[in-house]
Amino acid sequence: MKSWKDNVRFVLVEPEEPGNVGASARAMKNMGFRNLVLVNPPPLDEEARWFAHLALDVLDAAKAFPTLMEALAGMHVVVGATRRRGKQRGVFLPFEEGMQRAFALAGRNRVAVLFGREKKGLSNEETGRCDYLVSMPADREQPSLNLSHAVMVAAYELSRAGGAGAREKGPALVTRGELEVLYGRISALAGRLGFPSRGDRDIGKKTLLHLRRFIGRAGLTRAELHMLHGLCGQLERRLETHGKNQSD
Amino acid sequence: MKSWKDNVRFVLVEPEEPGNVGASARAMKNMGFRNLVLVNPPPLDEEARWFAHLALDVLDAAKAFPTLMEALAGMHVVVGATRRRGKQRGVFLPFEEGMQRAFALAGRNRVAVLFGREKKGLSNEETGRCDYLVSMPADREQPSLNLSHAVMVAAYELSRAGGAGAREKGPALVTRGELEVLYGRISALAGRLGFPSRGDRDIGKKTLLHLRRFIGRAGLTRAELHMLHGLCGQLERRLETHGKNQSD
Repeated sequence: MKSWKDNVRFVLVEPEEPGNVGASARAMKNMGFRNLVLVNPPPLDEEARWFAHLALDVLDAAKAFPTLMEALAGMHVVVGATRRRGKQRGVFLPFEEGMQRAFALAGRNRVAVLFGREKKGLSNEETGRCDYLVSMPADREQPSLNLSHAVMVAAYELSRAGGAGAREKGPALVTRGELEVLYGRISALAGRLGFPSRGDRDIGKKTLLHLRRFIGRAGLTRAELHMLHGLCGQLERRLETHGKNQSD
Repeated sequence: MKSWKDNVRFVLVEPEEPGNVGASARAMKNMGFRNLVLVNPPPLDEEARWFAHLALDVLDAAKAFPTLMEALAGMHVVVGATRRRGKQRGVFLPFEEGMQRAFALAGRNRVAVLFGREKKGLSNEETGRCDYLVSMPADREQPSLNLSHAVMVAAYELSRAGGAGAREKGPALVTRGELEVLYGRISALAGRLGFPSRGDRDIGKKTLLHLRRFIGRAGLTRAELHMLHGLCGQLERRLETHGKNQSD
C-alpha cells in the first residue's frame, strides 16, 4: 500500500561525511521514509553502511545526482531546511507549520526536503530553488545540528504531523464506578484499621482524599485495579483472623 | 537565569559507543539541555569528542556513576525511554504526552530521562525503577533508533512541549530516595501479609510493579507520601498486635 511517506524525498546536498549519509538513511527508515536522494555525495563506504545499520536497503536505493537541479526534477514541492536567515532567503515558516504543510501536500504531490552540507549548509542559490524554508528550532548558544540529527528531527516532525503520534493511544482506564467500589473497600478497611482522630481532624477522611487525588491523577488500568483489590483482600483476611483471635 | 531545562538530566545507561555519547551531548546542547549523566560508560575518547562537536562543555561536565541507583539519587521523576513492551513493563504513556508531562514536572522537580544500551536497551529491572515509560513513535519495520537520534528526538519533543506555552507547573514531588523508602516499607509489609505464589508467578513482585507504575504515573506529593506512610504505620501496628495475639 502506498503511503504519503512514499511521496517524500529527503535530499542531502553535497554531504561530506559518509557516516552522516548512513545515519540519515537509518533515521528516515525509523520514521517510515524510504526515498533518499544525494547530490554529489562522497563514496558510500563501509562507514556509511555501518551507520545505516538496518537501513541498508534505503542506503542502497539512494539516488545520486551531480546537481541539485537534476535531483529536483519531477518534484512538486521543495522545502529547504536551513539555519541561516537573511534578506536573501526571505520568509521562513515556523518549523512545525512547515512540516505540517509538507505532510498535507505529500498526499498528492512529490515533496523534497533539502538538507545542506555539514559545515556550510545550503547556498543562497539553493535556497532560492525552494518553495519555502524552515529552520529547526534550536538553542541560540549552539544551534548547529548534526546532519543526521536534522534529518531525524524533520522525519519525526513530519511523521508526527501525519498523525503517527496521534494514533498511539494512552492506557485504557477503569470506569468511575469501578473506582468508587475500590474507594469504598479501602474506606471500610481504613475504618477497621482504626484511624485515630487527633482533635477534630478526621485522619481517615484526609487519607482517603489524598488517595483519591493521586489515584485520580494516575488513572488506574484494569491490572492495577485488580492488584489493589488483591491487596485489600489480603488485608481483610488478615484482619478477620485477627478479629477472631481477639474475640477468642 | 535558571531554566526548567536545567532540571532535566539525560541518563545514558551503559552506552557502548563513545561516538554516541558525544553525539548525544551535541543533540542535548542543540536543544538547550546541559545535564548529561552516564552509567558505567566507555572511556570518552577522541571519537566521543569529535561527535560532541561544539558541545564539548556538556561532554566534559557529564557525570559518571557505576550504577543506575547512584545516578538517580536526588531525582524526583524518572522517565524511561524504551522500545520493548511487555507484561513486566506495565503501562506506557504516549510519547508526546510523556514528554509534556516531563516538561510540566521539570518546573519544580529534577527529572531524569533514561536511555538504554545500543543493542539491549533497558533491562526489566531498570524500567522497574522508572516512574513511567515512553516509547518513541517509530516505523514497525525498523523501529530501533540510534542512541543519539533517540536523545535528539526526546530533547526536541521536550523542548517543543516547553515552547508550547504551557506555563502551568506540575505539582512538587518527593524525591526518588523517599519513594524507594516507601516502596521498601510496602514491600516488607506485603511480605508479612504473605502473598501467595500461584505456580511460578510471584504475586508480590507483580503487585509491586503495578504499584510503582501507577504511583509513578501520578507522582507523589509530600502530603500523599505522609498519608501512605501513615497507612503503613497503621497496618504495621495491627500486624504486630496480631503477631502477639498469635504467639500468646
